[in-house]
Amino acid sequence: MEETKTLARFVVESRYADIPANVRHEATRSVLNWAGCAVGGCRHETIDRALAALTPFSGPAQATVLGRGERLDIMHAALVNGMSSHVFDFDDTHLKTVIHPSGPVASALLALAEHKPIDGAGFMHAFILGVEVECRIGNAVYPSHYDVGWHITGTAGVFGAAAAAGRVLGLNVQQMTWALGIAATQASGLREMFGTMCKPFHPGRAAQNGMTAAYLAAKNFTSSERGIEAPRGFANVLATARNYGEITGRLGETWEIALNTYKPFACGIVIHPAIDGCIQLRNEHKLEAEQIESIALKVHPLVLELTGKKTPQAGLEGKFSVYHSAAVAIIHGEGGESVYSDAVVRDPRVIKLRDKVTATADKSVHEDAARISIKLGDGRTLEKHVEHAIGSLARPMSDADLEAKFRGLAEGILAPAETATLIELAWSIEKLKNAGDIARAAVPAVGSTKRATG
Amino acid sequence: MEETKTLARFVVESRYADIPANVRHEATRSVLNWAGCAVGGCRHETIDRALAALTPFSGPAQATVLGRGERLDIMHAALVNGMSSHVFDFDDTHLKTVIHPSGPVASALLALAEHKPIDGAGFMHAFILGVEVECRIGNAVYPSHYDVGWHITGTAGVFGAAAAAGRVLGLNVQQMTWALGIAATQASGLREMFGTMCKPFHPGRAAQNGMTAAYLAAKNFTSSERGIEAPRGFANVLATARNYGEITGRLGETWEIALNTYKPFACGIVIHPAIDGCIQLRNEHKLEAEQIESIALKVHPLVLELTGKKTPQAGLEGKFSVYHSAAVAIIHGEGGESVYSDAVVRDPRVIKLRDKVTATADKSVHEDAARISIKLGDGRTLEKHVEHAIGSLARPMSDADLEAKFRGLAEGILAPAETATLIELAWSIEKLKNAGDIARAAVPAVGSTKRATG
Repeated sequence: MEETKTLARFVVESRYADIPANVRHEATRSVLNWAGCAVGGCRHETIDRALAALTPFSGPAQATVLGRGERLDIMHAALVNGMSSHVFDFDDTHLKTVIHPSGPVASALLALAEHKPIDGAGFMHAFILGVEVECRIGNAVYPSHYDVGWHITGTAGVFGAAAAAGRVLGLNVQQMTWALGIAATQASGLREMFGTMCKPFHPGRAAQNGMTAAYLAAKNFTSSERGIEAPRGFANVLATARNYGEITGRLGETWEIALNTYKPFACGIVIHPAIDGCIQLRNEHKLEAEQIESIALKVHPLVLELTGKKTPQAGLEGKFSVYHSAAVAIIHGEGGESVYSDAVVRDPRVIKLRDKVTATADKSVHEDAARISIKLGDGRTLEKHVEHAIGSLARPMSDADLEAKFRGLAEGILAPAETATLIELAWSIEKLKNAGDIARAAVPAVGSTKRATG
Repeated sequence: MEETKTLARFVVESRYADIPANVRHEATRSVLNWAGCAVGGCRHETIDRALAALTPFSGPAQATVLGRGERLDIMHAALVNGMSSHVFDFDDTHLKTVIHPSGPVASALLALAEHKPIDGAGFMHAFILGVEVECRIGNAVYPSHYDVGWHITGTAGVFGAAAAAGRVLGLNVQQMTWALGIAATQASGLREMFGTMCKPFHPGRAAQNGMTAAYLAAKNFTSSERGIEAPRGFANVLATARNYGEITGRLGETWEIALNTYKPFACGIVIHPAIDGCIQLRNEHKLEAEQIESIALKVHPLVLELTGKKTPQAGLEGKFSVYHSAAVAIIHGEGGESVYSDAVVRDPRVIKLRDKVTATADKSVHEDAARISIKLGDGRTLEKHVEHAIGSLARPMSDADLEAKFRGLAEGILAPAETATLIELAWSIEKLKNAGDIARAAVPAVGSTKRATG
């Protein structure tokens, strides 16, 4: 009955040496993927509008907006980088809770690292602890919390940011308990906002609010000491069922970051198996759109429920169209952000192929599986059964895959050499004397190349 | 089914001339009372700690911390003044919802007025509209929302601040709808935090987050257009029952600010009738503590449930003791913040009289009533039946009462002449060319006199 204090003590007393190497490597992969997403999203109009609105209220130039270079106070930098990292919905996924774990935690920590130097090991330690707190609290209230209508990346994320920042600030157990309570009383973010600019706002605000909680607690600003488990605490007020064993069970023995996954494609995760299969067939048979008479997909029923848009009109809608996604997988051989632009969605060649795609729901097909059958003009039929999509826990993206994804995201924002340097820094983050170097390396030397090249 | 948009249109299209004079006067009383509470609370350690934690991240010196004079960006100023106005739990009460309506709205608006000049009529118009939005949304979800565990001043307050700031920023209906949505997705604040520094944090954060929503919406930052009523919107996610008629019924015809009440005493509102009666008997009979053999109170059962502490040890506990409150009402003739200090709670003369107080719950006694019977050493028994306590809707504090309360709060923080000027400015706010003058007048010319005199 002391979940909040137990978590606080764990975060304060954890030793980095006790965290296994494979967990630390997965955490590094998470930070790399997060940084790529944040750089990639930095020119989205969501970020432009947020900066236009809030820059007049920013404090001193303490931390960097990744990919752009504006410098804001660390609270605003955490907000903006957190938004940027989620704006494409291309960031990581803790599948058990559908939390996007890195956004709230890394966005707070990297901004903090520029203001209060943290070495790479300290950064990664705090990052792993923040994700642990966030995902364990998520595990305890999922799925009822999500079903009620909460965007769990925001509501659980604020705890992760508070724990990570609090660890770096050296909070004692009492203060860390308060920090988690101050986080609890700021937990917010409605699923109703999906499809609007408020969705990426949630992880950004979680980063900012969690770090605020840590700074307040460091000055002995008090809160309830039972912010999570009290009768009127987070888990009771924001969920209809809860399992506290998920918070305290085997604490320090299992690590949630080890369960993190990364999207290879910039769209709803349920379409990934179909895209994966189409790309495989395209590459194996060097397919061109013009050879194809029809594409028949057999998919899990959720695919049609969530991504059944037959005639998307804008890039964002394309992300919710399994038909568009299959067509661009054949034509462009990928599912990155670039194939979900307005222009690609309206490209006559894409539309022509899209109209040849049919999708059938089949309960015997698993969520991370798909069956693809392509009929060609020459009479041949090509078949592919994807059992586990690339990016799933069973078939994780390789380090090289993550690098390629990063390069795709950074293209047009950083120069290729800058991207290479940033990737190298991210892989070696554990050995950095100052983790804030990552932020400074994520800024193009000469303005935005994306702007320059249109 | 368009509650959010209906409210947005109402706020955008409202005309000040359509608001009756009595409503405007009640709004002026609310602002006066709010300013007094904010000045009075400004030296509380809650404020000291928040400023110590957050000042390093403040933006330009755009707005004033009332009573102290630090200048912060408007978002931080709204946060701190909102906290300060609620830290004594002495601010106003919208009895139907137990919302403290002025804190979130006035704290945002006055900070904004220093950055973007607003004339007094524009300020009061935006204030009345903000309170209207906040209390109507509160009415729609009360009591289930409060019963679930939400601190409604925070959760409803963020809408009020967004509406008020949005009105001043000149949002159109589309933008105002978004502003209310961005507010909805930030709604937070747990009742679990009562008794800690997070309680006053809630109205402060509501002011800051609501104004942030307005500024974002002004740059066309999008949200759901049904943030309140959608299946996964505010009213469904944060309450178990709701009545949308409370939001849209007779909009523009009735005014929630007209139902505002003000506390004459700095403690739980349920003890007010007992204090009121004791003060009346004391003044009528020039009572001294030493004359008294016993004080017997008959009170509503809630009084003992909420404020039954027999032997409070600290000032804050005194606020939850009907026994202490009756004793200081006799000895000091008042129930202001000064009689709830640690020193007064531990004063032997107060303790001696407190121990002579008994309280009996009686269901026939209304919540705003009390029966007092005082037995004197000379054999006399004095009786008083308070039917409606001073400060209730049936027996509102007069303008002179509010001024006296203000002077008590400002004592030791502003010089008497400064207090007089500020009170005069507040009464004449509707005619001010720049409402921000109020903020600048709420700063002592020479440091804090409270600090100087200890």
